[in-house]
Amino acid sequence: MSNYTTIDLATITNLAKRRGFVFQSSQIYGGLSGFWDYGPYGVELVNNIKALWWQAMVRERINVYGIDGAIIQHPRLWKASGHIEGFNDPLVDCKNCKLRFRADHLAEVDSSDIEQLTTLLNGKVCPSCQADALTEPRLFNMMMKSYLGPLEDRESTVYLRPETAGSIFTNYELVRETTRSKLPFGIAQVGKAFRNEINPRDFIFRVRELEQMEMQYFIHPDTQADSYQEWREFAWDFLVSRMGIDPERLSWHEHGDDERAHYAAAAHDIYFHFPHGKKELWGTHNRTDFDLSSHIKESGQDLSYFDPTDSSRFVPNVIESSVGVGRLMMAALTNAYTEEEVNSETRVVLKLAKVIAPIKVAVLPLSKKQPLIDLAKQLFNEITKAGLMSEYDETQSIGKRYRRQDEIGTPLCVTVDFESLEDQAVTVRDRDSMEQTRVKLDQLIAYLANQFKL
Amino acid sequence: MSNYTTIDLATITNLAKRRGFVFQSSQIYGGLSGFWDYGPYGVELVNNIKALWWQAMVRERINVYGIDGAIIQHPRLWKASGHIEGFNDPLVDCKNCKLRFRADHLAEVDSSDIEQLTTLLNGKVCPSCQADALTEPRLFNMMMKSYLGPLEDRESTVYLRPETAGSIFTNYELVRETTRSKLPFGIAQVGKAFRNEINPRDFIFRVRELEQMEMQYFIHPDTQADSYQEWREFAWDFLVSRMGIDPERLSWHEHGDDERAHYAAAAHDIYFHFPHGKKELWGTHNRTDFDLSSHIKESGQDLSYFDPTDSSRFVPNVIESSVGVGRLMMAALTNAYTEEEVNSETRVVLKLAKVIAPIKVAVLPLSKKQPLIDLAKQLFNEITKAGLMSEYDETQSIGKRYRRQDEIGTPLCVTVDFESLEDQAVTVRDRDSMEQTRVKLDQLIAYLANQFKL
Repeated sequence: MSNYTTIDLATITNLAKRRGFVFQSSQIYGGLSGFWDYGPYGVELVNNIKALWWQAMVRERINVYGIDGAIIQHPRLWKASGHIEGFNDPLVDCKNCKLRFRADHLAEVDSSDIEQLTTLLNGKVCPSCQADALTEPRLFNMMMKSYLGPLEDRESTVYLRPETAGSIFTNYELVRETTRSKLPFGIAQVGKAFRNEINPRDFIFRVRELEQMEMQYFIHPDTQADSYQEWREFAWDFLVSRMGIDPERLSWHEHGDDERAHYAAAAHDIYFHFPHGKKELWGTHNRTDFDLSSHIKESGQDLSYFDPTDSSRFVPNVIESSVGVGRLMMAALTNAYTEEEVNSETRVVLKLAKVIAPIKVAVLPLSKKQPLIDLAKQLFNEITKAGLMSEYDETQSIGKRYRRQDEIGTPLCVTVDFESLEDQAVTVRDRDSMEQTRVKLDQLIAYLANQFKL
Repeated sequence: MSNYTTIDLATITNLAKRRGFVFQSSQIYGGLSGFWDYGPYGVELVNNIKALWWQAMVRERINVYGIDGAIIQHPRLWKASGHIEGFNDPLVDCKNCKLRFRADHLAEVDSSDIEQLTTLLNGKVCPSCQADALTEPRLFNMMMKSYLGPLEDRESTVYLRPETAGSIFTNYELVRETTRSKLPFGIAQVGKAFRNEINPRDFIFRVRELEQMEMQYFIHPDTQADSYQEWREFAWDFLVSRMGIDPERLSWHEHGDDERAHYAAAAHDIYFHFPHGKKELWGTHNRTDFDLSSHIKESGQDLSYFDPTDSSRFVPNVIESSVGVGRLMMAALTNAYTEEEVNSETRVVLKLAKVIAPIKVAVLPLSKKQPLIDLAKQLFNEITKAGLMSEYDETQSIGKRYRRQDEIGTPLCVTVDFESLEDQAVTVRDRDSMEQTRVKLDQLIAYLANQFKL
């Protein structure tokens, strides 16, 4: 029995669109499957999530450094990483209805072994049109291609990175040198990656253009167990303590032998209870020395590490911490979505952690009388200069404006009313308790800053 | 006569690499022309520049909203914008040495008229090998292609966006609706764009993968002149007052009739004196109603605006403010680079504006004695929690560490010395004046915060 309620995909998708969090990309052209644009509140929410992760992962840690690598890297990087050879989905087509399916899903196995899949799919019909018209399964590489220069041939082929980790490994030695670091140290990156998903689905959960936050921690092989444990704890703590995710919605999932990537010696995912089920949110993986060893072999560069404490030389091992920005946003929205009965009406409120709320303070003049508008705009400027993302809104009734701010998760509303000009005070309304507090204008910034513990 | 000194490309490129600002992408594989990775200090510098722009452009403005659109949009967007038809460079190949050249550069005209170029290039030889072996000029589209789904054909072709503006126009109506805005209002975006440059060059100035900060301001056609002026002033003021760019290094350049893009009624660029010359940094363009009208035509959607004040209906005009993140970073580094004689040695110092400096405070224990290290690490934690990006460094002599912090532009160094444990105070050294101030530990955070006016 869980103590939380889950919402369905339609509810979250509709709220996200209606309130300007997430729009279908290129909507005026009918959209493009697997691509989404963040609207005014979505971009603030994801930027806040990214800044929070960067603060916890890079800024508060003495030995974790950030980088920002290009999306297009040298193709040999993806040869070394195994993506050109092995980043494949097994697919079958229906010759009758022309739909395309994941062969492993149809066969209900976690395998990309073509021979095994061919055997298992023998005699199966199309799950959509029921025709006995499925092709043999074949492997399809999920990296998206492009070409550099005017010719389009094998020589000029490049790939949009399928994960951000790659350029962390190719920059490992440069970062170590310029920061003069000793092991252990980490390299963190936030950035876009692309996957040619055959069947993008579940809102922003499975997409073709995604954003990742990844950190690779370079360690002595003897410290794998401790370091792995440390980064598992970091992920859980970040979700619960910083993002305000209800821990009941989270669970651990250890990869079985048949699930782990070819490079991983151990893998633990944190699952979140999404609207479409309990699914992977944040992975902690022991990548061993697979990556650096592969790059040493492919590039011919010496990426081994000399340890001055015991005069040994070895290839560092890597513990990876990896989470998708879009999934984290979807988890935050799902976690925050609340319906409450207030005066026998349903109030929808996003109880987002204050630190990630898109708008911190809404400034609302009670009427469009000029003195109220002037004062409200002056407060907007002061609040914004104090570092709190603020929004000014003078349209519609105050009740509708409160409801709108509740739905985008704004923690505090400052209402300028007719008495404000006389008593030099405003009403501050709390999103969660709906309590209203009268605050003097000359104490307002300090009051608001204290609410956000600036 | 200018009162500033300029540096050459090699100096800035070397500093950027040596000090961890910018690395050649995929360097262990020999690099990839036109692609760069930001190192630990580069990523902080660009993130600070982006945050500063976002603060000034979005957060401090009542009527400018952010979005974050996908890099891959529906191909019809680029049909409407004219990029599929017209985003071309005229090229010639040398059949002897196999090098490729911009035909307009060889012909020394600003034109992509193939007939004109053919005439002008008649009889010209290859500028590299001097062979009489140049092909006829032909147009080459600079958008980078990719494919969605497993087939690679015309139907599945998509493009990596050549500019961020596109998804601002396709989201115009959704943003207007969800924010319930009236004209004028703006939509701002920071994000990557890709251009298949034939000849990437000049460090991070002309690249294939770039990042843009763009804002499109949607206005009544009658207000074009005022709005254009306002956004020209915004750009200049941002560079001088917020980024600390020396105005002597800046100049206005008005596009002539032969330079303007097909959609622009007027265009003013701010030029910066880069190491390789005075070049475009920030553009303010009057795009008229070209974009929305093109999307109305291509999509069949009604993107016109009903003005309730005079009951008129029209297609909004657009004033664009557009700057490249990489170019702005390069301008900031060029502007900040200073060599000074100190005790008959040359000191290199990056006099970056404090707000964009990658590291705000460096914490340096004078020796590796444990009590000093413990106190220094404790101070690192307190400074970081107070919101100041900080770095802990215990290696090498204190003189070398100061020199290193000067070269990455760190405004303040906090040195923990042997007396610190007795007098409960540390030395704070100022980057620019090199003055040292003794500050009590219990006043340190307030002292530092005041230096950054937090």
